[in-house]
Amino acid sequence: MPTISKRGELMPPSPIRKLVPYAENAKKNGTKVYHLNIGQPDIETPKPVLDAVRHSDFKVLEYSHSAGNESYRRKLVTYYERFGINLTPQQIIVTTGGSEAILFAFMACLDAGDEVLVPEPFYANYNGFAIEAGINVRTITASIENGFALPAMEAFEKAITPRTKAIMICNPNNPTGYLYSKEELSVLTELCLRHNLYLFSDEAYREFCYTGEHFSAMNLDGLEDNVILMDTISKRYSACGGRIGALVTKNQTVLDAVMKFAQARLSPPSFAQIAGEAAVDLPLDYFDEIKAEYQSRRDVLVSMLNDIPGVFCPNPGGAFYAIARLPIDNADRFCQWLLESFSYEQQTVMLSPATGFYATKGLGTNEVRLAYVLNKEDIRKAMICLGKALESYPGRIEIKEGASVAEN
Amino acid sequence: MPTISKRGELMPPSPIRKLVPYAENAKKNGTKVYHLNIGQPDIETPKPVLDAVRHSDFKVLEYSHSAGNESYRRKLVTYYERFGINLTPQQIIVTTGGSEAILFAFMACLDAGDEVLVPEPFYANYNGFAIEAGINVRTITASIENGFALPAMEAFEKAITPRTKAIMICNPNNPTGYLYSKEELSVLTELCLRHNLYLFSDEAYREFCYTGEHFSAMNLDGLEDNVILMDTISKRYSACGGRIGALVTKNQTVLDAVMKFAQARLSPPSFAQIAGEAAVDLPLDYFDEIKAEYQSRRDVLVSMLNDIPGVFCPNPGGAFYAIARLPIDNADRFCQWLLESFSYEQQTVMLSPATGFYATKGLGTNEVRLAYVLNKEDIRKAMICLGKALESYPGRIEIKEGASVAEN
Repeated sequence: MPTISKRGELMPPSPIRKLVPYAENAKKNGTKVYHLNIGQPDIETPKPVLDAVRHSDFKVLEYSHSAGNESYRRKLVTYYERFGINLTPQQIIVTTGGSEAILFAFMACLDAGDEVLVPEPFYANYNGFAIEAGINVRTITASIENGFALPAMEAFEKAITPRTKAIMICNPNNPTGYLYSKEELSVLTELCLRHNLYLFSDEAYREFCYTGEHFSAMNLDGLEDNVILMDTISKRYSACGGRIGALVTKNQTVLDAVMKFAQARLSPPSFAQIAGEAAVDLPLDYFDEIKAEYQSRRDVLVSMLNDIPGVFCPNPGGAFYAIARLPIDNADRFCQWLLESFSYEQQTVMLSPATGFYATKGLGTNEVRLAYVLNKEDIRKAMICLGKALESYPGRIEIKEGASVAEN
Repeated sequence: MPTISKRGELMPPSPIRKLVPYAENAKKNGTKVYHLNIGQPDIETPKPVLDAVRHSDFKVLEYSHSAGNESYRRKLVTYYERFGINLTPQQIIVTTGGSEAILFAFMACLDAGDEVLVPEPFYANYNGFAIEAGINVRTITASIENGFALPAMEAFEKAITPRTKAIMICNPNNPTGYLYSKEELSVLTELCLRHNLYLFSDEAYREFCYTGEHFSAMNLDGLEDNVILMDTISKRYSACGGRIGALVTKNQTVLDAVMKFAQARLSPPSFAQIAGEAAVDLPLDYFDEIKAEYQSRRDVLVSMLNDIPGVFCPNPGGAFYAIARLPIDNADRFCQWLLESFSYEQQTVMLSPATGFYATKGLGTNEVRLAYVLNKEDIRKAMICLGKALESYPGRIEIKEGASVAEN
């Protein structure tokens, strides 16, 4: 039998999805599982967005332009204008989810062996795309103690090598919820200009900021040729299954290269481009309610977490994730145990072990990521479950402040 | 400004799409362009397939399972049963188009520097996916003289190196239309077993065979662990824009590895999975009419081509492509000239230069690929145009038989 590839072996199983079989089992056994493990919002996709697809009347489900329908890209121009980002339709390449935008940027900007610098913890699937592209993710560790703020410039400077080609951030951050300030971004500007690096900015959660205004990397002065924006409609409009994202940049050479990758896979999905186009026409106050809803969920989640003895959760500034430190020996074991061996009033909680969000071995072993994508009542019940679980978990240990945080 | 990657430079522009700007210009100038350049069928997507999406009533456009909805995979099991291919839903991973199935197979089975052996001419985008995966495409040249039949076993043996990990075919073939016989496939079985190779079989056009029955690589005895099927609903149901395909194999280790790549990109598009599921329920005679239509188009195209002085086009056994040899100096120049400098009664033809389908430099320079995806009346007009064009093309040259074919 032929063997699989080394990268096929190296490829990490999704830390978000690898517990799925245990959850399925728990459900088969009649246990209600609260899914705080995955960024699948329960918020309804706006009806006009779904209706646009349902009322479409084309006869042939054709390939679109490889860069996406021009009508959709024009509409996206007006969407970005709302954030002071001035673009032409040619500076937007519609991708199959934000995932493909990330893969395209890695492929078009870095060669095998090149390095991208990412503050950790970071969105675990960057690892997968890095392995596909043969590039190396190098991390600078952020600290739970200060809510995962951007590490100091010196830490970046120390990590930069001749193979470093890019810095990557997710803002507001998945998995930490941290919202980078304009000042932190200007540190990145300085670094990128000094070392001639790309700045990859994943802004999937742009609309969901609670502690301040979002500042897009696209608006960083002097960095126009360095910034590549990875975007998606998945979270913005609760449209994860559409698989529509975008790669946006003012760097024409990058656009030309990315277009070749886009042409190879022919086109992004047609149905969901119709949805994406309709979404831009939603009333501008659409996000007010959604944002208020997420913010109130965050408030419930974070306060209930911090009320559980031994638990620490910094208050996230955006997105809909939080990382909490738990009094446990091993997050992977704990998350599996929650599904396999625990229930409270026929209920349990599914969480993501934070280990999968760190590249540095040994970090995140007592941290979990929680996605507050359930309604407040469910979040409350889930937090009660979690509290009960931590009381009876056999691997419970007391952790002294700061013990989970590397020193650099 | 940071530089792009070497692979971003190496990545070939699509030979199918790179002429698009010239076509757009021609249309702006009032010229009607017959698109024989791209496999975008004009056949209507079956109404029940589109209606399934339009009548869907979910409220949240969610991620699906990374391997695709289980209901859809169950349905696909019944689809494959019709061809004597017995599968479990777990042996099917739904992909974003056939494109992603190809990329996943390359990534999961081959490492950078490994080689895949492909008869040329071949579907040009294999090149793009190979560059993304860092693997090398090695070709064995098929001959237009015998209709692009499978090259002799000796030619494969000669090309196999210690880095060869797979043989790849497209059956029936894009771009040649050649339908591989059971005997030719048994040659590949022997080669794969002897050299411990994967057999990647792209069967996007399974239903469209005119000169015999299709024999799937999945039904090759003794090759169960070696065969990876790449499939798509794009051509089958005129649903190219859905971006739904599948990777199918009985090799559990490959399935496990591919699942990790599938998890990294989260899920295939949700809307079109609904379409794909409905498509399996189409009446079994659905393909009779479509196939008859394509076959009659082929008959018109091939006979009109061979009636043009200096043109030779073998009769394709399947799919909806043909490669023709033309009395021209340079296919790329000719195809551009057709759009830029030629029109006949305000009409012209868009073709794909065959050079992009060959890896061996110098081959295909006097060949073009034609997709018979237009109705017969349009095909007739397009062929009249082409005949007129060849009369006035300044680079016309007479070619002696066999001159375009390499000797191995």
